[in-house]
Amino acid sequence: MEIAVTDRVVLAYSGGLDTSVCIGWIAEETGAEVIAVAVDVGQGGEDLDVIRQRALDCGAVEAEVADARDEFANEYCLPALKANALYQGQYPLVSALSRPVIVKHLVAAAQKHGATTVAHGCTGKGNDQVRFEVGIQSLAPSLKCIAPVRDYAMTRDKAIAFAEAKNLPIVTTKKNPYSIDQNVFGRAVETGFLEDIWNAPIEDVYEYTQNPATERAADEVVITFEAGVPVAIDGRKVTVLQAIEELNKRAGAQGVGRLDMVEDRLVGIKSREIYEAPGAIALITAHQALENVTVERELARYKRQVEQRWAELVYDGLWFSPLKRALDGFVNEANQHVSGEIRMVLHGGRAVVNGRKSDQSLYDFNLATYDTGDTFDQSMSKGFIEIFGLSSKIAARRDLA
Amino acid sequence: MEIAVTDRVVLAYSGGLDTSVCIGWIAEETGAEVIAVAVDVGQGGEDLDVIRQRALDCGAVEAEVADARDEFANEYCLPALKANALYQGQYPLVSALSRPVIVKHLVAAAQKHGATTVAHGCTGKGNDQVRFEVGIQSLAPSLKCIAPVRDYAMTRDKAIAFAEAKNLPIVTTKKNPYSIDQNVFGRAVETGFLEDIWNAPIEDVYEYTQNPATERAADEVVITFEAGVPVAIDGRKVTVLQAIEELNKRAGAQGVGRLDMVEDRLVGIKSREIYEAPGAIALITAHQALENVTVERELARYKRQVEQRWAELVYDGLWFSPLKRALDGFVNEANQHVSGEIRMVLHGGRAVVNGRKSDQSLYDFNLATYDTGDTFDQSMSKGFIEIFGLSSKIAARRDLA
Amino acid sequence: MEIAVTDRVVLAYSGGLDTSVCIGWIAEETGAEVIAVAVDVGQGGEDLDVIRQRALDCGAVEAEVADARDEFANEYCLPALKANALYQGQYPLVSALSRPVIVKHLVAAAQKHGATTVAHGCTGKGNDQVRFEVGIQSLAPSLKCIAPVRDYAMTRDKAIAFAEAKNLPIVTTKKNPYSIDQNVFGRAVETGFLEDIWNAPIEDVYEYTQNPATERAADEVVITFEAGVPVAIDGRKVTVLQAIEELNKRAGAQGVGRLDMVEDRLVGIKSREIYEAPGAIALITAHQALENVTVERELARYKRQVEQRWAELVYDGLWFSPLKRALDGFVNEANQHVSGEIRMVLHGGRAVVNGRKSDQSLYDFNLATYDTGDTFDQSMSKGFIEIFGLSSKIAARRDLA
Amino acid sequence: MEIAVTDRVVLAYSGGLDTSVCIGWIAEETGAEVIAVAVDVGQGGEDLDVIRQRALDCGAVEAEVADARDEFANEYCLPALKANALYQGQYPLVSALSRPVIVKHLVAAAQKHGATTVAHGCTGKGNDQVRFEVGIQSLAPSLKCIAPVRDYAMTRDKAIAFAEAKNLPIVTTKKNPYSIDQNVFGRAVETGFLEDIWNAPIEDVYEYTQNPATERAADEVVITFEAGVPVAIDGRKVTVLQAIEELNKRAGAQGVGRLDMVEDRLVGIKSREIYEAPGAIALITAHQALENVTVERELARYKRQVEQRWAELVYDGLWFSPLKRALDGFVNEANQHVSGEIRMVLHGGRAVVNGRKSDQSLYDFNLATYDTGDTFDQSMSKGFIEIFGLSSKIAARRDLA
Repeated sequence: MEIAVTDRVVLAYSGGLDTSVCIGWIAEETGAEVIAVAVDVGQGGEDLDVIRQRALDCGAVEAEVADARDEFANEYCLPALKANALYQGQYPLVSALSRPVIVKHLVAAAQKHGATTVAHGCTGKGNDQVRFEVGIQSLAPSLKCIAPVRDYAMTRDKAIAFAEAKNLPIVTTKKNPYSIDQNVFGRAVETGFLEDIWNAPIEDVYEYTQNPATERAADEVVITFEAGVPVAIDGRKVTVLQAIEELNKRAGAQGVGRLDMVEDRLVGIKSREIYEAPGAIALITAHQALENVTVERELARYKRQVEQRWAELVYDGLWFSPLKRALDGFVNEANQHVSGEIRMVLHGGRAVVNGRKSDQSLYDFNLATYDTGDTFDQSMSKGFIEIFGLSSKIAARRDLA
Repeated sequence: MEIAVTDRVVLAYSGGLDTSVCIGWIAEETGAEVIAVAVDVGQGGEDLDVIRQRALDCGAVEAEVADARDEFANEYCLPALKANALYQGQYPLVSALSRPVIVKHLVAAAQKHGATTVAHGCTGKGNDQVRFEVGIQSLAPSLKCIAPVRDYAMTRDKAIAFAEAKNLPIVTTKKNPYSIDQNVFGRAVETGFLEDIWNAPIEDVYEYTQNPATERAADEVVITFEAGVPVAIDGRKVTVLQAIEELNKRAGAQGVGRLDMVEDRLVGIKSREIYEAPGAIALITAHQALENVTVERELARYKRQVEQRWAELVYDGLWFSPLKRALDGFVNEANQHVSGEIRMVLHGGRAVVNGRKSDQSLYDFNLATYDTGDTFDQSMSKGFIEIFGLSSKIAARRDLA
Repeated sequence: MEIAVTDRVVLAYSGGLDTSVCIGWIAEETGAEVIAVAVDVGQGGEDLDVIRQRALDCGAVEAEVADARDEFANEYCLPALKANALYQGQYPLVSALSRPVIVKHLVAAAQKHGATTVAHGCTGKGNDQVRFEVGIQSLAPSLKCIAPVRDYAMTRDKAIAFAEAKNLPIVTTKKNPYSIDQNVFGRAVETGFLEDIWNAPIEDVYEYTQNPATERAADEVVITFEAGVPVAIDGRKVTVLQAIEELNKRAGAQGVGRLDMVEDRLVGIKSREIYEAPGAIALITAHQALENVTVERELARYKRQVEQRWAELVYDGLWFSPLKRALDGFVNEANQHVSGEIRMVLHGGRAVVNGRKSDQSLYDFNLATYDTGDTFDQSMSKGFIEIFGLSSKIAARRDLA
Repeated sequence: MEIAVTDRVVLAYSGGLDTSVCIGWIAEETGAEVIAVAVDVGQGGEDLDVIRQRALDCGAVEAEVADARDEFANEYCLPALKANALYQGQYPLVSALSRPVIVKHLVAAAQKHGATTVAHGCTGKGNDQVRFEVGIQSLAPSLKCIAPVRDYAMTRDKAIAFAEAKNLPIVTTKKNPYSIDQNVFGRAVETGFLEDIWNAPIEDVYEYTQNPATERAADEVVITFEAGVPVAIDGRKVTVLQAIEELNKRAGAQGVGRLDMVEDRLVGIKSREIYEAPGAIALITAHQALENVTVERELARYKRQVEQRWAELVYDGLWFSPLKRALDGFVNEANQHVSGEIRMVLHGGRAVVNGRKSDQSLYDFNLATYDTGDTFDQSMSKGFIEIFGLSSKIAARRDLA
């Protein structure tokens, strides 16, 4: 480890106005050298090299960029898929999943460059500050964290003024009416007129999805899973990243994956959020349907509780916590037999499963059918009912008679 | 209680071929007098008086009919709505909810007419036999239960032959290709070609819902809840029954509420089920959205687990169990503040909430906004993050360093 | 902080050195008038009038004392008993239960005397600061909270110096080697040589319990419950407070209720705690044993999970939270039939139940016995086993064959 | 039932009267050849060779004996220890754990000897019939199960008559007043005068434990764990079996591990059970205490729920179920750091931990201490409390104000 004479701060850099200003702002506030780190988690936008150069032009002493898209898909989105992770039963954890992978790159850069501090651009009332800082503390307990917007009162107006005063090579447009975060697993939109929870979202807020009400032909897709991992689409082998990307395109074109919800933030307040996650929702829907065929009942019932806790933990920024690791032990075991094909129609905002096939299936036609071939021994039912209901019946004799 | 000289059996009577044949079949098998009881839970079809007369014509010594639609809506569907009850996260318990109300009427009839036995038309491999018999045992532990199809091998073919031999006043058509159960809360379809789980359902199986893919104008609805109870639609006061019926019509017309799933039966097998529950799905969606606004985070997180157990219990036929009653204690307390209005667009198979209003709201614009008026004290976040993540950080020092 | 002339602070007052010094310290730091409030939750020690006079002598403008022992027993200890509340499966929440009742009196005093602020004597690394402040915020969101030890760095040494400089009427002895909190439900001891978790506690740390190793005659007690409430001991009617007090004496004399544990604090650290709670442990043990006889299996299984969450919530200071209220809805319903008598031997540190009697019993001798009178129909078991194990068997055909 | 000349039945053989009679009884009932299999799970008693010879003398065509004590300890008792498995919070699953290991040997013998059926000596109203048959179905779905006591009405009196008529080489003493099952993990006693739940057990029913009330010197023991496995006692290396055996002796000598409870059987009835499990209780107590030191709070909280479900599953005979395997995935991950030493005093029926030492400890003296060296930053607490309590406070503004 190279020990800096001057203190060094690693900054989570997006290339946008706020974090570009942060470079100089942090330098002025702390006297430290700033190292900018940009991580590509599929958020799209500018080329990484352009972003890297801008960081240097804005005063960073070093700038690192990383294409973490496959890492994000394989190590963060995939566990979420195996856990059918939907916070509050709806939100596929889009931003919550990207924070830990970004944290990993920030911590690696801090260690490489001998930085003592990591900086991020979050405000002080959201979930992401917690996810960044708890993540960083967990991977490198000795690193300090700062958030200029929160800790040095760097407002948008001050940032624009700073950029203009320093002549930073960045466009200081008016603020987007919404606050947006996006990556390959989805897109989150908040603030603006959406803060009035009686207001309906307008078509304008969406980018990953087409209007589901527009008439168009349906799209039928077959997704193949092996042990919970999507491995092929319509028979073509895919990586997890490719699976998400292709379904973002195809499900997004059908308006699948829009969410409009009032959400319980970790910091104790409720906020209104609009999400688009066409690939995530299509994959989770297919994965759940395949689990229904391949996972035994009691395991399936318990897994639903585990999934909920998993989603809460990750939402709450506890990706690197011991409980998360132990729940993954459960989830991975439960996914061992989740192999097979799911046929799904994408249309009009809906992702509807209408066919399943699996050589790991626990659906037994001969036990299920009421037709010729029925092997279920109905004479067993009388005894089952008698004893299954016995404790309830004994209580009823006391309570209801 | 009047004691019959001849033994008496109360039969759950639908008016259809199978239970019409059961009247004579039971009489022959047991020598008992049969009392037919038909309960209207909104399944539609023939007039209750017609059904009553048919029972008598088929040999019943008594026939009772009951319009239990409001009772079913208020005492069975409403608790399910408060619990957002969806078995396996999907199925709104349509048949499972109707069994206990029918059981109540069967037991009352048995007590009124001095019957010692209750008979039902279920097979020996489904859930409903358990729901009937555990329910009956719980309300009247001394009553016996019989199921001619299961216990006396009364197959469809034998039933037709019996009807023809006895010249029963009932049409002995070929069997419907599907097995169907329906009531005001929804409709279940199974068997036939659907037993091949790779086969997609065809439009033919649906009755409560229109094809969601057909182009039509959207329908916007505002549902008002008081303490979890739907009390008005578009400002017009409604009973719970009326709320379900109106939304069955309006959401059904938009193709909302179709489900196609492989389900874990209580008897240990997986079966393929098609459901239509437009009113139930629309109401639960609205109720959940209002809870997101009015229920505190930790209560909401815990309630999701309770909801799942509630749905499992009711699916498993344990409506009258002590655990169900205690969970209702929790659910009712949790619904106390679930009051307000939900605006929802019904269209193309989707029921999408896009507005909420409540004077019990916990959404606080001033805490949530990033605009003027923000009252959230961001300086508190640093301390929160430090201590919230501390146990995880201490573990990380040991595990990840 | 600039304080208006009439600003008033309510102080949670114990009569001891620290809170006596707080009176003047807060006045100096804030310029406010201090109102001392002492709440008797059965902690023993000085007369309330003596404590009240001392507060005035130390400079309080008002001093209120309240005998809250029955209120504490009925409204705080009793719900804990119904929930068999044991944090980490062991600790009966002694201090955690007393904080909300004290909070209620502090808030009432603040409202009566027009105070804007409540002060307490806790440090900044324990659970009690959270319990006080979250409780106060929940009952009176507009009240501010201060903690001189934490916020004004009022150390023990400085407190002694202050007391001597001001000539306060209080003995400034050397600090007790332990930090102690006690009330009628138990006693907590921490710090000192106990902070080395390899050190065994010495007899010296205990006050509520005799050495269990000392030879003495056993004491047999019969406790009568009605709907979960202890109503009689050895046939004599008692209030809840009397039940706790009598069992503190009798179980304490036998060394029952000592705990030595490493505990997970809400602030994220582990700490070593010694507890004595003879009455609490004896009552919970008896209550659990009566539940085993009177509560149906599935309700009992689920209640164990609810109990654990209840204990965590109360430990975490969320007594006044919506989730706590909804869990109480469940717990009260579950206790409805917990009526009967428990015979228990108190001896040698053990409280051992060896007899139960209840007219609400679900134990059915005729079903349980292997002797004459057996009414259990063993022929039912075959069918039960077949279907109960079916989903597991189907999975096994795939996984284990 | 018509049986082929070569049909073979494997019988779970204990060497006692009932299963000795079963050999001939089954042969007569079914015409099959009987293969006796005796499995040593530490139940003590006769030599395996003596038992083997008796089976042959009673008519078995083959007799197999297996010393499964280490297998039982390592693969069945150890997972239970890692899960701190206590059914209803008390019972360490003594009999429930031994059934699956016996099942494994029965199935292996059936496969080796080409048997089609497995027989066991259980009655039709207990848990063990379920554990045997669901276990056998899970390992070998094609095997049939029979239970002569249940299926062929083989009562005790008939068994004695049969033994005398056939001159079987076995003592036909009067029945023991109790029904007993024992193995190295503990001993279960039921029936007799204990079926009156107001009757206290008498000293006579105990064999593994001395009277705890007898005066004797205390015994202090240090148990070393590695990743949840007990590996040394007082510094001497031990196998899991040796650990259990040594603690059975030492804790048993101090009266540790007696239980008297009313238990919820799987078949829906409540029964009264006396258990002795000195080694199991001592080991679980030590293991829990070490977890308190080495397992992070949120993991520890969740694990308590998992433990309860694990115990229910195993009690219910679902050892070989998919859910059990997935829970083991969680439990093993959670035990990874449970390494260190626990010092415990065994005395007067109590096993009391009073010292812990671990290089995997999460107890941080410097964070916990109130003394010199305190590194906890108390200034963080204010922010933590504010945000931790915020959702509750917002709800309180609505509900309690």
